[in-house]
Amino acid sequence: MKGQKFAATQNTQIRLTKCSPDYWRVTFDHPPLDIFGPEMLPQVNEIITALETDEEVKVVVFDSAVEGFFLIHLDFLAKLDDLAHLPPGPTGLHPWPEMLVRLSRAPVVSIASIRGRATGMGSELALACDMRFASREKAILSQFEVGAGLVPGGGPMAQLSRLMGRGRALEVILSANDIPGDLAELYGYVNRSMPDADLDGFVDALATRIASFDKRTIMDTRHLVNVASLPPDIEIESGWNACVASMARPATQQRIKTLIERGFCKPGDAETRLGDFVGKR
Amino acid sequence: MKGQKFAATQNTQIRLTKCSPDYWRVTFDHPPLDIFGPEMLPQVNEIITALETDEEVKVVVFDSAVEGFFLIHLDFLAKLDDLAHLPPGPTGLHPWPEMLVRLSRAPVVSIASIRGRATGMGSELALACDMRFASREKAILSQFEVGAGLVPGGGPMAQLSRLMGRGRALEVILSANDIPGDLAELYGYVNRSMPDADLDGFVDALATRIASFDKRTIMDTRHLVNVASLPPDIEIESGWNACVASMARPATQQRIKTLIERGFCKPGDAETRLGDFVGKR
Amino acid sequence: MKGQKFAATQNTQIRLTKCSPDYWRVTFDHPPLDIFGPEMLPQVNEIITALETDEEVKVVVFDSAVEGFFLIHLDFLAKLDDLAHLPPGPTGLHPWPEMLVRLSRAPVVSIASIRGRATGMGSELALACDMRFASREKAILSQFEVGAGLVPGGGPMAQLSRLMGRGRALEVILSANDIPGDLAELYGYVNRSMPDADLDGFVDALATRIASFDKRTIMDTRHLVNVASLPPDIEIESGWNACVASMARPATQQRIKTLIERGFCKPGDAETRLGDFVGKR
Repeated sequence: MKGQKFAATQNTQIRLTKCSPDYWRVTFDHPPLDIFGPEMLPQVNEIITALETDEEVKVVVFDSAVEGFFLIHLDFLAKLDDLAHLPPGPTGLHPWPEMLVRLSRAPVVSIASIRGRATGMGSELALACDMRFASREKAILSQFEVGAGLVPGGGPMAQLSRLMGRGRALEVILSANDIPGDLAELYGYVNRSMPDADLDGFVDALATRIASFDKRTIMDTRHLVNVASLPPDIEIESGWNACVASMARPATQQRIKTLIERGFCKPGDAETRLGDFVGKR
Repeated sequence: MKGQKFAATQNTQIRLTKCSPDYWRVTFDHPPLDIFGPEMLPQVNEIITALETDEEVKVVVFDSAVEGFFLIHLDFLAKLDDLAHLPPGPTGLHPWPEMLVRLSRAPVVSIASIRGRATGMGSELALACDMRFASREKAILSQFEVGAGLVPGGGPMAQLSRLMGRGRALEVILSANDIPGDLAELYGYVNRSMPDADLDGFVDALATRIASFDKRTIMDTRHLVNVASLPPDIEIESGWNACVASMARPATQQRIKTLIERGFCKPGDAETRLGDFVGKR
Repeated sequence: MKGQKFAATQNTQIRLTKCSPDYWRVTFDHPPLDIFGPEMLPQVNEIITALETDEEVKVVVFDSAVEGFFLIHLDFLAKLDDLAHLPPGPTGLHPWPEMLVRLSRAPVVSIASIRGRATGMGSELALACDMRFASREKAILSQFEVGAGLVPGGGPMAQLSRLMGRGRALEVILSANDIPGDLAELYGYVNRSMPDADLDGFVDALATRIASFDKRTIMDTRHLVNVASLPPDIEIESGWNACVASMARPATQQRIKTLIERGFCKPGDAETRLGDFVGKR
């Protein structure tokens, strides 16, 4: 498979492992932060394309090989010009939100196994998955963006409102604060939070179990859950447009500049305590 | 009342008790499994018709008299030909999903008091009720169908998505696994899980309390909750059609055949540990 | 500011405090019950108008200065004729539901800090806020109305269905019973319940934090959560109309008369144990 070859040989930021023909694993492995650089975008795209087109895969698990991080936000220290000028995909959405929408609709059950920090794009990718399970001790989810003057661009307003209701979604997004595993469970941000020692076994058993069922039945069933629960694309598009507009505002540019001067996007307290970090003036 | 006479004298699988003119109780009493045989369908229909037309009833509680079971899935050992060829009801839906839709809209508050296993049609009936309360020690809810190659036919994709959000609904339905009382409470599958010793008293007090209020006020209020929260019929219809289509596929027929050979639909481990059972290959 | 002057000098039932230009506090201070008298309506209106038009405010916290009460229901002992004949606001809604709708859309983040009883209009105001936090020991939320023969008029059928799903919303509204802090948290009625000693510090820190972020970004983000989660006005309007119709029915008038004879709307057991009170016949 082309996607597999690409991921395995040309770049080790995202590794694709086929545990079996019907059960795949996608591992973010971009130390030290699992930060989302522009070069990750085509890799994610290739993996999602493979998930869309492979006829055997039934379940994919997303996890991380980097201590302390699942997948975090955009790397604001990288050259982002290319990213901003990417042509829209077939649906008219920018490639990032489009990939998320495609993942939610791809004929494969997707499970995020969250150990370490999932913020910004990392949280958005987890929210585009079918299910999310968190390490009680090590998972931290958040949408930090509002703290940096940014409207989140990958759909959390649409997704979190539907998962946890208006009150909790507004708190999570507008506070821009860290949400540890147990609170994420209480709020419905994740399906369940569990002891770190149990997470891998639980997720592997669940993935193996679902992969043992009939693919057609799984997909027909899942389609009807999607009909009942996925946000319309226009909400995702509006979110992306609001994100791009916020990015261009001088006030936001100034906030991001200040954050970068204090260590944002580099290993250290800025990223390991991002909630506190964006809350300090 | 015709419905009462039918239920009380011609068949003891479902018993109707009028605790008072405004508070009724419907008890599933079809030992040893409370399995849903084709003969149950007209009985349920008669009871729902009575609930729709009686002018005094305000609250109905559904419970079970069978140890270990609330109400479970279709009896695949029964002659099912009649079931498949039943004419649609007034809404155009097949009688089973139509009865569920009618129950959710009938001018009566419905409460499922769940002790023992509620899976398949038993879970679907509980989900069509207004509220669900579970015995912490003895309730097990599930939609086992995907594990048997079947798309669930009585609306859980539509109902569970709205009760617990996409992530947890997909886990419950696609894992086809047992959900005990406390997890059902965490996920919102039931309103609350409570000690088994408290369940009857709690439900009886709640039913008595609501039955003491004004029927017109109850129904006008409930109508507006229904407007805000009931799935559209078309989602229920699509689910039923997908169920029927899945049932006809050879792969599904083979799965069901294998399960039956191993004890499905008979007393024993297959039904008392159904989650584990459908997960074994 | 006109609103501030009004609230501060002409009437002390509702006090507006500007902690800073971007962080305001609205305190219900109408002892002994924080009951909602007709004279409160223009005061609430003035405050909401100020929140809509002020260019600096980013966050407003609603709390109470009255021991045991946050804000409760309409004062049925007051002269209510004026209230019934108020002209509709710009949206065509009656002023009360219109104020709630306006608060949910006003360009300000609203947080209800609930200590004591919030029932009827008090619960509806809290539900119109963006977020709700509750004292574990002292908060009691409820919609008592059905127990008095009334359909609730300020939108809880629409709001609670979306926050907690159909089953729990029906229980809360049709039982008309008291919901203490921890159960309110489990059901999603509030974001979180916490020790009473922590509530003020938590809410203040959250409000201060959000007020430190960029107003435009906050509001663009919040708008998209609103798109995904606010009920349509027509549901609020239908609820109000059903409330007015229920109020006019002789059966309801009789229920309210009986409740008043037993102490409703006056200090004492009727209000401090309202859930039990309306459940007694």
